[in-house]
Amino acid sequence: MISDAAAQAGIDINVPCGGQGRCGRCAVIVESGTARRRSTIRLSAADLEAGYALACQTVIEDDLEIFVPPQEEITRHLTTEKTAAKISVPFEYDWREHQTIAKYFVEMEPPTLGDNTDDLARLEREIAKQYDLRGLHANLHVLQTLARTVRDAEWRVTAVIDRSEIEHARLVDVLPGDKTDSLYGAAVDIGTTTVTVYLVDLLTGEVVETAADYNGQIRRGEDVISRIIFASKGNGLIELQSLVTGTMNRLVERVSARRKIDPKEIYKMIVVGNSTMIHILLGLTPDPIRLTPYITTVNHPPLVTANEINLGIHPQAPVDCLPGVASFMGSDITAGVLSSGTHHSDKVTLFLDIGTNGEMVMGTSEWLVSCACSAGPAFEGAGVYHGMRATTGAIEEVWINHKTFEPTIRVIGGGKSRGLCGSGLISLMAEMFITGVTDKAGSINLNLPTKRVRQGEHGAEYVIVWAEETDIGKDIVITKPDVDNLLRAKAAIYAGYVMLAQSVGMTINDVEQMLIGGSFGQYLNVEKAIEIGLIPDLPWENFHFLGNTAARGAYMALLRRDAREEIADIAKKMTYLELAADNAFTDQFMAALFLPHTDMALFPSVAKVLEGKEE
Amino acid sequence: MISDAAAQAGIDINVPCGGQGRCGRCAVIVESGTARRRSTIRLSAADLEAGYALACQTVIEDDLEIFVPPQEEITRHLTTEKTAAKISVPFEYDWREHQTIAKYFVEMEPPTLGDNTDDLARLEREIAKQYDLRGLHANLHVLQTLARTVRDAEWRVTAVIDRSEIEHARLVDVLPGDKTDSLYGAAVDIGTTTVTVYLVDLLTGEVVETAADYNGQIRRGEDVISRIIFASKGNGLIELQSLVTGTMNRLVERVSARRKIDPKEIYKMIVVGNSTMIHILLGLTPDPIRLTPYITTVNHPPLVTANEINLGIHPQAPVDCLPGVASFMGSDITAGVLSSGTHHSDKVTLFLDIGTNGEMVMGTSEWLVSCACSAGPAFEGAGVYHGMRATTGAIEEVWINHKTFEPTIRVIGGGKSRGLCGSGLISLMAEMFITGVTDKAGSINLNLPTKRVRQGEHGAEYVIVWAEETDIGKDIVITKPDVDNLLRAKAAIYAGYVMLAQSVGMTINDVEQMLIGGSFGQYLNVEKAIEIGLIPDLPWENFHFLGNTAARGAYMALLRRDAREEIADIAKKMTYLELAADNAFTDQFMAALFLPHTDMALFPSVAKVLEGKEE
Repeated sequence: MISDAAAQAGIDINVPCGGQGRCGRCAVIVESGTARRRSTIRLSAADLEAGYALACQTVIEDDLEIFVPPQEEITRHLTTEKTAAKISVPFEYDWREHQTIAKYFVEMEPPTLGDNTDDLARLEREIAKQYDLRGLHANLHVLQTLARTVRDAEWRVTAVIDRSEIEHARLVDVLPGDKTDSLYGAAVDIGTTTVTVYLVDLLTGEVVETAADYNGQIRRGEDVISRIIFASKGNGLIELQSLVTGTMNRLVERVSARRKIDPKEIYKMIVVGNSTMIHILLGLTPDPIRLTPYITTVNHPPLVTANEINLGIHPQAPVDCLPGVASFMGSDITAGVLSSGTHHSDKVTLFLDIGTNGEMVMGTSEWLVSCACSAGPAFEGAGVYHGMRATTGAIEEVWINHKTFEPTIRVIGGGKSRGLCGSGLISLMAEMFITGVTDKAGSINLNLPTKRVRQGEHGAEYVIVWAEETDIGKDIVITKPDVDNLLRAKAAIYAGYVMLAQSVGMTINDVEQMLIGGSFGQYLNVEKAIEIGLIPDLPWENFHFLGNTAARGAYMALLRRDAREEIADIAKKMTYLELAADNAFTDQFMAALFLPHTDMALFPSVAKVLEGKEE
Repeated sequence: MISDAAAQAGIDINVPCGGQGRCGRCAVIVESGTARRRSTIRLSAADLEAGYALACQTVIEDDLEIFVPPQEEITRHLTTEKTAAKISVPFEYDWREHQTIAKYFVEMEPPTLGDNTDDLARLEREIAKQYDLRGLHANLHVLQTLARTVRDAEWRVTAVIDRSEIEHARLVDVLPGDKTDSLYGAAVDIGTTTVTVYLVDLLTGEVVETAADYNGQIRRGEDVISRIIFASKGNGLIELQSLVTGTMNRLVERVSARRKIDPKEIYKMIVVGNSTMIHILLGLTPDPIRLTPYITTVNHPPLVTANEINLGIHPQAPVDCLPGVASFMGSDITAGVLSSGTHHSDKVTLFLDIGTNGEMVMGTSEWLVSCACSAGPAFEGAGVYHGMRATTGAIEEVWINHKTFEPTIRVIGGGKSRGLCGSGLISLMAEMFITGVTDKAGSINLNLPTKRVRQGEHGAEYVIVWAEETDIGKDIVITKPDVDNLLRAKAAIYAGYVMLAQSVGMTINDVEQMLIGGSFGQYLNVEKAIEIGLIPDLPWENFHFLGNTAARGAYMALLRRDAREEIADIAKKMTYLELAADNAFTDQFMAALFLPHTDMALFPSVAKVLEGKEE
């Protein structure tokens, strides 16, 4: 394949679908030589004429000259970057009482001929005496330098001790002198798209720095399925693992540099993510996750040390990947439930994490049910011809004049537009529906008195921006296949709500509040999202946008052992509905494949808007 | 140094003293160029004339042409090679009851959409159901391939589980199909000179193969002190570590090949050795062991897995280095006490392990005291001009005609002689003393009517073999400095006995039996050893030669958890006397610097022999 040859030549071609020939975004131009195109999906006749070929689907049969177009840049400054100061300590915190990692300063009696206790036992003896802590486990890495450290430091040292595992205390390191004035930990959320790191001062419990960046794996697949497929080929798993640890290490270096500490001073890390992300991080074969009956290797991963997975914090730091529930219900959600408080609520609560996947939990303090919808990353711009991530140039909001059908747009960064991001797509869909550009079924009305609706190569389409006003030199359009993709995505999510409610003998009308996590939720326009039927038609005050609930849950577990245990309890308590083979789900999905839904009674506020328009 | 340059050029020059310029055995010939000899110890005027220089002590100041003489070969087939059949299972053994490692065959229910338990939990569930074993810990290495293994094996697998640590069961591996028909472990004794491996069938408890070879570290120092010094320079520690693991891995491959198994089928290893050997194996800085007050990093090393120290058995196999007591009282001795039964004896027992070091334990079932004498490896041929290891060409027995003073010798391999090994030296010393070639103080009588006594370059000497009858073209002699070295070595050991007895308010006459371990003990002639005062003057039937007590103790600990715990108890119970700074020891040492001792009353049988001679 051209993509393999390019990789060997050190040229990076993005394969957002993992090299399946699905997304069309690895297109290159074959300028000379013979290449066999195994698939030309997403390439137009004109594209083919111009020499375009999919790098991931084109076999090299000859010496080729290839032109690689500029690859999509990922430049938007993620908004979580600067929010450290806004994150308050979520509960009472006293490191002496709650923290599992601690530093102990000891002054040891030097050995003599009459007291020849070995170095480790001498250290243990002193720690037992001064801190009443016994039964220390030390591994080779720490012992290998212990003799030198205690002697160079003249028997005045700081022991770093981890008690993540109740059964025993583990010696993480022995530092020269008194180093008890600082203690750092990190909470990490590995999203399919975005990785977020909180640097936490474990003495005060405060988040002192945060950083986020795109997951380095994006170039090898935009959604979890693409990643799993990529992982199953050759050294794919190793490559994906090192891409995500690379991202994590860069973020850790960034927060450490800002705090002016060495990343090796981070002595504990809590990680959350969906089960695929965690499997890849730990190097576990993710294949069975995507194949029926969708089984993980492990939902409660063992505690590892940073060096086992090449993380650049202290090599012996405990890295705790929190427990998830199933292949498509990971620790990002169990942590999200914790931080959202769903499991303590006395109201019937629907918790939704809108990220690259669509996971949701319904419950109260008494019960929790959950499901995942293979919504796909349509709302992150994938599977939509002019879809893109929420970076500079993305249209994030659209208004359509209901008389002229002329759109007004808002573009991230304020410059020329390049495509539509998730919130832009929701806004556009809602406006098209309300103004009659589409009907309930999403069909574009070609009879409207505007040039903006027309028959395109992929069927009916609506032009949002004319070529000359864009940054890409092409009309930015939304096509019937795009609309269908978005409808399927939102229908899957809505059907999920219904299935959860039914499983506990309720209807969606019993939901008393809706908590929305995920960074995407922050940009969500509730009115528009209700209009397309992506979220239930509740009073606006019943929606709460919580931001990155996964990272916040990891942060809580980083601080207190009881919060860590609470997440394990949540994972244990949560019933998971496997929708994949459920006919009732298919029925609900079909019913939701309309704007906003077949059953308008479920969306009274939208009905009212439509009535108002008709008046 | 020439030795460094040679190493860089891939030429191996032995430095038996670790590069301290003490032993003179790294001598090379400088054929041209300028070299500065920092030390010329052990080189004669004639040697210097001939261009000899010590590779470890000679600075290169110019381009040099160096002739490297053939390095000492280590070829003798070690006697432990073929003894597997002779080693009987030491106690009742039933693997179901006693063994900490086990294989469990399970047939798992394949997952379904309705039973989506993760792979690990599914395995645990089945093991709990079939074998009532709960709380399995699995590390990343095992989990990384678990999904593939259980699926490829169609859910019929064998779990290998280690319960070395009482608190939890650890999943070592998951094998496809039913592999419960075999289970192997290894017991290893790392001697300073010799490494011994027993391959054990853990189902029957039998030693099925044994192999031994010289410790690959010998070329970097013959005694522990030389090794520690070598370890302290540059990458010395890493080099010594890989030399010993190299030896262990070769031996493991050898026994595995004979048994027709893969070394990866060895799932458990018990290791014993002196504290220096264990520190180096584990990569722990050994420096403080040789410096007052002689402190180890750890006497009870943590359990490690084979991959942590690059051992070629199953990478996740537990490797348990048994507990020692002090810098010069290692697990070779605690294991030796176990296998000798000293700690269960109702007689006052003196247990001596004659190896490269001289460690001894006195005790009964009620008490144990121990000490180590820096005897040095004189009885292994080091520090003696024509000393050598017990390999082909070594004189192992000498008889001297008390009238003509002509010697009769026995040479290992039966060919021409090259030097004297330990048993040969003891035999020679005893004969020289009894026949009057030396007096009580070890002075050689130059007035005897034989050409064999003469004034040599290093003082008085006795010629054992004339040059033309040797394999080296030089007279094989024993010199006054050699005799002094041997006297110091045996005096240190005898003084040790006395100190142990005194420490418990006894005298050496209270010793009721003497147990002698170490392969050297197997060649020891009791009569001769008593005549030079190396062992106490007890009736011959009170001596028991036990062979490799260290390896046998490791083997016992490999079989049964209670034996492993018994060694920990021995280590805890054993009082260690530090003799280094004890004036009483110095007094006893001085008193023992005679043949057989200043106090002839301690050696009545020798007195009788001398009287008989005088008659």
